[in-house]
Amino acid sequence: MPRLKGFEKLTNIEEAFSVFSEKLKAKRLKSVQIPVGKAFGRILAIDVKADYDLPRSDRSAVDGYAIKAQNTFEASQFNPKRLRLTEDEQVHENEARQIWTGNPLPPGADTVVMLEHTRRIRDGIEVLTPVTLGENVSKRGEDVRKGEIAVGAGTRLKPHHIGLLAALGLTHVRVVEKPEVALLSTGNELVDPGCRAESNQLVDVNRLIISCMCSELGAKATDLGIAKDDIDEISARILKGLEEADVVIITGGTSVGHADLVPAAVNKVGDPGVVVHGVAMRPGMPTALAILLGKPVFMLPGNPVAAMIGFEVFVRPLLFKLLGIENDPRPMLKAKLTHRVASVLGRRVFLRVHVYERDNEFFADPVRIKGSGILSTMTKANGYVMIPEDSEGLEEGESVIVHLFDKIVVA
Amino acid sequence: MPRLKGFEKLTNIEEAFSVFSEKLKAKRLKSVQIPVGKAFGRILAIDVKADYDLPRSDRSAVDGYAIKAQNTFEASQFNPKRLRLTEDEQVHENEARQIWTGNPLPPGADTVVMLEHTRRIRDGIEVLTPVTLGENVSKRGEDVRKGEIAVGAGTRLKPHHIGLLAALGLTHVRVVEKPEVALLSTGNELVDPGCRAESNQLVDVNRLIISCMCSELGAKATDLGIAKDDIDEISARILKGLEEADVVIITGGTSVGHADLVPAAVNKVGDPGVVVHGVAMRPGMPTALAILLGKPVFMLPGNPVAAMIGFEVFVRPLLFKLLGIENDPRPMLKAKLTHRVASVLGRRVFLRVHVYERDNEFFADPVRIKGSGILSTMTKANGYVMIPEDSEGLEEGESVIVHLFDKIVVA
Repeated sequence: MPRLKGFEKLTNIEEAFSVFSEKLKAKRLKSVQIPVGKAFGRILAIDVKADYDLPRSDRSAVDGYAIKAQNTFEASQFNPKRLRLTEDEQVHENEARQIWTGNPLPPGADTVVMLEHTRRIRDGIEVLTPVTLGENVSKRGEDVRKGEIAVGAGTRLKPHHIGLLAALGLTHVRVVEKPEVALLSTGNELVDPGCRAESNQLVDVNRLIISCMCSELGAKATDLGIAKDDIDEISARILKGLEEADVVIITGGTSVGHADLVPAAVNKVGDPGVVVHGVAMRPGMPTALAILLGKPVFMLPGNPVAAMIGFEVFVRPLLFKLLGIENDPRPMLKAKLTHRVASVLGRRVFLRVHVYERDNEFFADPVRIKGSGILSTMTKANGYVMIPEDSEGLEEGESVIVHLFDKIVVA
Repeated sequence: MPRLKGFEKLTNIEEAFSVFSEKLKAKRLKSVQIPVGKAFGRILAIDVKADYDLPRSDRSAVDGYAIKAQNTFEASQFNPKRLRLTEDEQVHENEARQIWTGNPLPPGADTVVMLEHTRRIRDGIEVLTPVTLGENVSKRGEDVRKGEIAVGAGTRLKPHHIGLLAALGLTHVRVVEKPEVALLSTGNELVDPGCRAESNQLVDVNRLIISCMCSELGAKATDLGIAKDDIDEISARILKGLEEADVVIITGGTSVGHADLVPAAVNKVGDPGVVVHGVAMRPGMPTALAILLGKPVFMLPGNPVAAMIGFEVFVRPLLFKLLGIENDPRPMLKAKLTHRVASVLGRRVFLRVHVYERDNEFFADPVRIKGSGILSTMTKANGYVMIPEDSEGLEEGESVIVHLFDKIVVA
C-alpha cells in the first residue's frame, strides 16, 4: 500500500511528544505576586510554609464544657458526675467552663465534653458519659504545623487552598504567570464566527474552541485571525504570534492534501521548524509539532474535533509544563462499554463516549461517528476512551477507563 | 440523653431541602443576550435549534478523490481500477476529482477514496481497494439537522458547545444571569483575611472560600463583611444583602451555643424566617435555612469545612435552580476504601477521602480527621464519600462512590 510523502512515517504519541519536548526544553514561566483573593484557579509558584501552627492554640472542636478528662472517668447516665461551673481563667479539679466551637481551651482543662453529653443543674453540670483525654480538642498545630508545607508549588488553587492560605495570614501569593497562546486559523474557505457562511465556506470555530480550552487550563488566548492559504501570509502571522505569545497554535492546512502549506510556512520562519509531522492517532493524524525562536508551535488539523484531540494530547501537557504542573489528568472513571467498537491497528483511537450512571454502575456508550469533523459527537459525549495502538477494538461489556470532559448523567 | 433546645429535632438532608424548596419556590433567574465568544461557562437559557443542516452539504471527511463507488467494486491491489483525473465541476463514470477534507462533494460523485488507498499514474489514479457507497462522506445534516435542538436550555457551555453554536452561525446567545450571592461572616473573634490574628482571634476564611465556590458554579459573590455578635448589626447587614443579591449566606453563629444569634437576627428581618435549623449531617449539623423577602438565606457553620459541606449540600442545588440547571453532579467514580471507617447512626457523614489510581484501579484513602474545622483535611482530600444515615460505617475494601472536588493522583 503506498503511503503519502508527508506522512511516510507516523510517529506514535509518546515518541512525538518526547522528541518535541527534548528539543524544546520548555521551562516554567515566571511568577507574579497577587492578592490571595484573586488567586483562585491560579497555579502556586512556590511551596507555602506555615508561619505559625494552625490552630494557633488548643481549641474546642464542639460546643460544650472545658474540663479535666480524669474527672469524668466514672461518669455514666445512672451515675452522672457533677462539675461546678466556673468563669475563671483557669479550670480546676471538678470544674467545668462553658466553651464554644473554635474557642481556645482554657488553662487547666485538657478535654471538652459536648453539650449533648451533659445536663445542666443549679450551679453546675452533670456529665453523663466518661470523656477520653483530649476528646473534642483540636490540638495546636493539628491542622498545619509551623514550618510545614501547607500548599505545595504547582498546586492549582481551589477554594480550600485559598482558605488555608488566608488562614495562615497570607495577603499575597506568588503564582505562575498565565501562558499566552496565539491562535491562527488557515484556509481560504474560512469565515469568522458571526459571519454567515456561503455553501462553499465554513465558519471557523477552532479559534473559539481552543481559546475556551486555554482559559479552562489557566492560559490566555490572543487572536491572530484567519490567514489565506498563502505561505507568506501564514509565516508573517506566525512571526507576529511568536513575538506576542509563549505558544502558537495553527489550525488547518496541515493535512498533506493541503500541499503542506502550514509546515512550509513554519519552516520558512526559522529553525528547527517542524520536528514531528503526522501522528499515529485518530482523529488528529495530520498534527505537526514545531519549534521556532525556542517556542512551541502546534499545527492542529482543521477539523474541530481533531483539533480538540490534538490540543488534549499535545498542547495541554505543554501548557502544564509552562505552568509548572507535574500532571493534571482529567477526572477518570471505570465504566462498562455498552457496544463493541472496532479500532485501527497502529493508531491510538480516541473514542468519544457518553457515560451515565445507573444503579451505582457506570456505563460508557460509544458515540457513533463518521469523520472527525462531527462536532456533535463532542456535544453528545462527556468523555473519551483511549484504545491502544495494539488493539483491534473493544468488546461489549469491557471495562474501560473514561477521561471525563463534561458532566455525568444519572439515568 | 438530653438534647439541645435549638436542635431538638435534627432534620435529615432531603427533608430539610424539600421543606425549604417548597416554601421558597425558587425560579430560574432572567436571561441576557451575550456574544458567543463570551459565553464559555455560562448556562444556556433557551434551546438553540439549528437554522440549517450541518454540514450544509455532503462533504469529504478525508483527503482523497471524489468518485462513483460502483467504479471501484472490483478493484484490488493486484487488479487496480484506473480512473481518469478531472477538474470539471461534474464527476462522470470512471472519473476522479481531487478533494480535501471538508470540501463539498462535487455533483456526480457519491463516495471519496482516501489518498492512501490510491496510486497516482500519468493522467489518473489507480484505486487499490473497493470503496463502499458513501464512504468517507459526511452527509449533509449528519452533524446537526435543520430544526434539531443543537444545544439545550440549561447546558453549561463547554468549548465544544461554543464551537457548535458558532458553527451554526450564531453571534449571540441567551444565557442565564449570574446569581448574586451576598456573603456575611459573624463573630467577635474574626478578623479580615490579611490581618494577623491575635491568639484569641481567627482569620475569617469563609467569605473567601465561599466566594470561590460561587464563582466555580457561575455565581457572583458580593461582600457584606464581618458582623459582630450583635442581633441588630447582623439583621441590618442581612437586609442590605437581600436588597443587593439573590441569595444571602451567613457563616458562624448558628450553633446553639452561640445563643442562636444569627437565627434570631434572621427572624427579626421578616417572615417566614428560619424554616430549618439543625440538619442530621456531619459536619454541618448546625446549618439553618431561611426565607426572607422571598429569597433564600443560608446559615452555615463557622467552621470552614462544615461551611463548605453545608454549601455543597444546600447552596449548590439552590444555585443550580436559579441557573436553570436540572442536575450537575460532581465527577464521580467508584473506588476501594483503603481503611475501615466508623460512622454515626442517624447522621449522613461526609467522609473526605484521597483518591488515587494504581494499575487501573481506584483507591479511596480516608483522610483522618478530628473536628470539622481542620482545613487541611480538604487540601489533603480530593473527594468525599457519603455514608448514609443507616450505616454504622464502611469496611476496608468496600466499593464506594466518590464525589470528586479536586484532581486524582496516579500513584
